[in-house]
Amino acid sequence: MSGAPIFPSTRLRGTPFTKKVEEAGVAGYTIYNHMLLPVSFYGLDADCSHLKEFVQLWDVSVERQVQLKGPDAHKLACLISARDLRKAVVGRCYYAPICDAKGGMINDPVALRIADDCWWFSISDSDMLLWAEGIAYGMGLDVAVTEPDVSPLAVQGPLAEDCMVDMFGESIRDIKFFRFAEYEFQGVKMNIARSGWSKQGGFEIYLNDKTLGGALWDALMEKGEKYNMRAGCPNLIERLEGSLLSYGSDMDKNTTPLEAGLDRFCALDSDAEFIGKDALLAKRAAGLKRRIMGVKVDGYPMEAVGLALPCRVDGKRIGNITSGVYSVMLDQNIAFAMLDIDYAKVGQVIEVETETEWQTGVVCELGDLAK
Amino acid sequence: MSGAPIFPSTRLRGTPFTKKVEEAGVAGYTIYNHMLLPVSFYGLDADCSHLKEFVQLWDVSVERQVQLKGPDAHKLACLISARDLRKAVVGRCYYAPICDAKGGMINDPVALRIADDCWWFSISDSDMLLWAEGIAYGMGLDVAVTEPDVSPLAVQGPLAEDCMVDMFGESIRDIKFFRFAEYEFQGVKMNIARSGWSKQGGFEIYLNDKTLGGALWDALMEKGEKYNMRAGCPNLIERLEGSLLSYGSDMDKNTTPLEAGLDRFCALDSDAEFIGKDALLAKRAAGLKRRIMGVKVDGYPMEAVGLALPCRVDGKRIGNITSGVYSVMLDQNIAFAMLDIDYAKVGQVIEVETETEWQTGVVCELGDLAK
Repeated sequence: MSGAPIFPSTRLRGTPFTKKVEEAGVAGYTIYNHMLLPVSFYGLDADCSHLKEFVQLWDVSVERQVQLKGPDAHKLACLISARDLRKAVVGRCYYAPICDAKGGMINDPVALRIADDCWWFSISDSDMLLWAEGIAYGMGLDVAVTEPDVSPLAVQGPLAEDCMVDMFGESIRDIKFFRFAEYEFQGVKMNIARSGWSKQGGFEIYLNDKTLGGALWDALMEKGEKYNMRAGCPNLIERLEGSLLSYGSDMDKNTTPLEAGLDRFCALDSDAEFIGKDALLAKRAAGLKRRIMGVKVDGYPMEAVGLALPCRVDGKRIGNITSGVYSVMLDQNIAFAMLDIDYAKVGQVIEVETETEWQTGVVCELGDLAK
Repeated sequence: MSGAPIFPSTRLRGTPFTKKVEEAGVAGYTIYNHMLLPVSFYGLDADCSHLKEFVQLWDVSVERQVQLKGPDAHKLACLISARDLRKAVVGRCYYAPICDAKGGMINDPVALRIADDCWWFSISDSDMLLWAEGIAYGMGLDVAVTEPDVSPLAVQGPLAEDCMVDMFGESIRDIKFFRFAEYEFQGVKMNIARSGWSKQGGFEIYLNDKTLGGALWDALMEKGEKYNMRAGCPNLIERLEGSLLSYGSDMDKNTTPLEAGLDRFCALDSDAEFIGKDALLAKRAAGLKRRIMGVKVDGYPMEAVGLALPCRVDGKRIGNITSGVYSVMLDQNIAFAMLDIDYAKVGQVIEVETETEWQTGVVCELGDLAK
């Protein structure tokens, strides 16, 4: 599949920023949580190098919020999260794998503790709302599970902080990584977090009034002019260089967080109780059968990978590529691959089957692709 | 959003037939249940007229199956379905709205009773698996909720039956509407139902071995040659002419089945117990506030509608278009619209705001758009 257009449909939801994104010349979309997510403006390479030098405005409305609110909200949040959220603090963000009873990943949101009795789970691409609501219904919990009118707008890149200070004031600098605070735009209070789906630094503004989307976009673009701000979006090259996993590509319901290398976000050695814990403990005790790794792939520049390319050693299938792309900066194809545990070793040489040929790859730690 | 390409990604799953679909010259996709769904081959008009005259092969793998299996499978199926499934018969298909506790629609699958202790819900575009699994977990039910390796392939059009007889034998003619039976392909048994998302008649083959996708496609295309078979897909024009609703476009979690005109599939006047029943009874007693209707829209031919166009009467917002397109056969724009109940009346004249102008529309029954 390459280049076939997305057909317009009311089923594919626009965002409060879609009009601005179109005016900015979006070159392609993907669909994420039934919604439009830009994937390129000036091409992956140009978008990537601009992101690393300046500042970009990203429409990440697709990060829908699953809001848990009510007397049992905190109980439900703790129950569904593999991360120990029991002592979570209001004003902080927590990356939290969500598992089914078998330890398979349902989602990997960033969870924001909004209040003692209110959580937002800023989700990746699956209807986690249905999971949380189903659990709550089945257990008879006193909690309202809803998708509020919240559409995050990210300001990303090394100049993001200066730009945000011009917009919201000096106190922006005081927001620490993965914390959020309340700011006002046109009289409406909204949360701003130091977070975002890049390694270049920046913020996410949780716009909570969709009618203000255009005005917020324009105001930021105006402040951003002197920082060479452009419209941008999560960038495939930058995320692979920075070892950021994408739910649905690199892991899914058939993957445990252990296989995805997310052990440190799973409270397996605490007395926290959460869905999937027993299964994960059993799997850990039995030993992992596969693990996600980085792969540096030789040969012709790979297109952005749209299929899970097979990986082999001596003709034996040992896994597949989960994400891959050519990095200009590295002059190298870089990829993530889910590999049988016997071959998930640094320095392991493998063969990767692209559409046209076999290319040689060398396995590395996920975080070492840019080294 | 028009014409921007879908960017390839392993998150957007291919199907067992994607290679064949590409070879057949697919002109555009949509994303449905995180998977590729073709939307056009020769253009909407040409695809539509061909479908009404001959027979087409549709890759509808996106109709993922949510399988409930185990001692409590039937109990869970009855609990989540607004339709009374208590006396459902093995071998039959049931269109079944699924609601949350507030009566909002979560999905509108076709449910197949596979065995006494096994159901398949052939879903529309939402992760209904997470809902069913969450309910089962929360209630401690003894049922396995899974997505099996099943990818439906539809054979649709007036010549579908003859073609299927050539492929599977005369007994195909005995399959009644919304019934299914087991047939064999290359030694593998799979269910074939007389069903499909068109009003032209036909069958859906529930391929249950993804490695056979290419072979099944080729075998059917070979048998179909003398019937002028082509690759096709659910067609927007045909579905609007035929008043087929699309979940996510025409109704969603904010819509009740009553508002969507699906009253006859909701067991409100029986003693069946299902999630959302109390809420639906209360809403019915209070009187509906809005309802989906057909609208014949004058003026320039509408493009396939990608935004929920506003509808007004005397300047007052009274609802929005949920799906719309120009029908060559009718030489008329036809649309579905969710309208305030005071204006959801046959003959009501409304104004529809398209991207370029206001166009006049006349409200009709959903089923009367082609009359």
